[in-house]
Amino acid sequence: MTDFGARLAEQVAARGRLCVGVDPHPQILQDWGLSVDAAGLAECTHRMVDALGDIVAVFKPQSALFEAFGSAGIGVLERFLAAADKAGAMVIMDAKRGDIGSTMAGYARAYLSNESPLAADALTVSPYLGFGSLTPAIQLAEATGRGLYVLCRTSNPEGGQVQLADTGGRSVAQVMVDEVGLANADRDPGPFGLVIGGTLPALDVDLTGFAGSILVPGIGAQGGTVAGLQELFGAAAARVLPTSSREIMSAGPDPDSLRRAVTELTDQLR
Amino acid sequence: MTDFGARLAEQVAARGRLCVGVDPHPQILQDWGLSVDAAGLAECTHRMVDALGDIVAVFKPQSALFEAFGSAGIGVLERFLAAADKAGAMVIMDAKRGDIGSTMAGYARAYLSNESPLAADALTVSPYLGFGSLTPAIQLAEATGRGLYVLCRTSNPEGGQVQLADTGGRSVAQVMVDEVGLANADRDPGPFGLVIGGTLPALDVDLTGFAGSILVPGIGAQGGTVAGLQELFGAAAARVLPTSSREIMSAGPDPDSLRRAVTELTDQLR
Repeated sequence: MTDFGARLAEQVAARGRLCVGVDPHPQILQDWGLSVDAAGLAECTHRMVDALGDIVAVFKPQSALFEAFGSAGIGVLERFLAAADKAGAMVIMDAKRGDIGSTMAGYARAYLSNESPLAADALTVSPYLGFGSLTPAIQLAEATGRGLYVLCRTSNPEGGQVQLADTGGRSVAQVMVDEVGLANADRDPGPFGLVIGGTLPALDVDLTGFAGSILVPGIGAQGGTVAGLQELFGAAAARVLPTSSREIMSAGPDPDSLRRAVTELTDQLR
Repeated sequence: MTDFGARLAEQVAARGRLCVGVDPHPQILQDWGLSVDAAGLAECTHRMVDALGDIVAVFKPQSALFEAFGSAGIGVLERFLAAADKAGAMVIMDAKRGDIGSTMAGYARAYLSNESPLAADALTVSPYLGFGSLTPAIQLAEATGRGLYVLCRTSNPEGGQVQLADTGGRSVAQVMVDEVGLANADRDPGPFGLVIGGTLPALDVDLTGFAGSILVPGIGAQGGTVAGLQELFGAAAARVLPTSSREIMSAGPDPDSLRRAVTELTDQLR
């Protein structure tokens, strides 16, 4: 299987550089006139794929909002994954998993193995247990041609407490940039990326030489703009995969309005 | 509802101080003569509750190993939770979730709301996005009388990379001790606890005055001993909830052997 970095590059070349967050919050379900239960969740996510699956480069479902409906919600997530794949959209599972050893291997099997009904093209992971704790996920992603996005630096005000802590001259966030860079070896684009917030006042990590994808949530409703991305990321802006959720989903449920929201944002990002 | 800290104290007084990790790894399923699929998972976890539900104080299912079987695995987890509750055992869901804002609120609804089929007595959470990012979970746990265990300091060799990073004189791990301590306000035992590894060479956080529960994985097969706990935690040892998984589960599937393994370890911990 072609590796994730190369597949993502092809997809972005064909469909444009936009990742659509699938965040079916209770408020969105209500706004769409749907019930706040697994049936409403299924209808919402079905409509998203139906309206957008043939034009969106990447969907990013937010696992929490499916888990909130228990196994029925996870069943909906499985059907969403299958439908997105059938429509030709890639999927980054936003689950921010992190653990050690054989437990991390369990998360890897869930989201990165060919046999799992929850397998996605890539998975977001959390490195509180150290970058090295993610090794089982890196190994399985390598084996199956999938990707990882490692939490690095987030825009929420309290994010710096951990991410800017000092590890002998480098921040924790910089350590993640450097470690993920090493995992990409000499591949450009590499299969391993970073999650960095789009509404930081300034970029406080050095991305020079980083050759993976940079998943940037917060475009649109959360305050990030396309011009702001260029300013924040400078030379690394070309590696950014901007993610918008609320701005897109609040245009629904009308399929034409959803498509227009995506097309407009995709055009701005060209 | 009585809060988690008080309920846990009562439970430990009645059943002893042992948390049994429910980690149905593929190897365990095979060792028990079960199929490595959702049916095998269901049989394994059913046998655990059946053999141990009336004597174990707390079960700690490892979410990853259920997620690895997709929605069918999560359905098994739901049935496990219901069976454990019926048998009078408490449950700490080991899922190490962490996100921000309305997404963290989604995880909180999944594991800490009265309505969710995945609700447990407490949930493990990961603070890479800053302690403050956990606020929606803290608020819901307060409202429903549930608890949280915040990842603090783990025994894996790479854990120090993030956990021992310096935040102006305090390590990240120490910040978590202090923040969780504040969240407990003046309650003793408070509902908010810490996850600290049981096989650290030395305790490098100061737990003086910490009034929550300390979840300590790694007793038994991972190398931690009861004597070692006392040595490592000193005065805080009385707050430790020691967790053993492999040592117990490898005694199965025979119910008498499982009960004997639990009884012996519980007696050692008195």
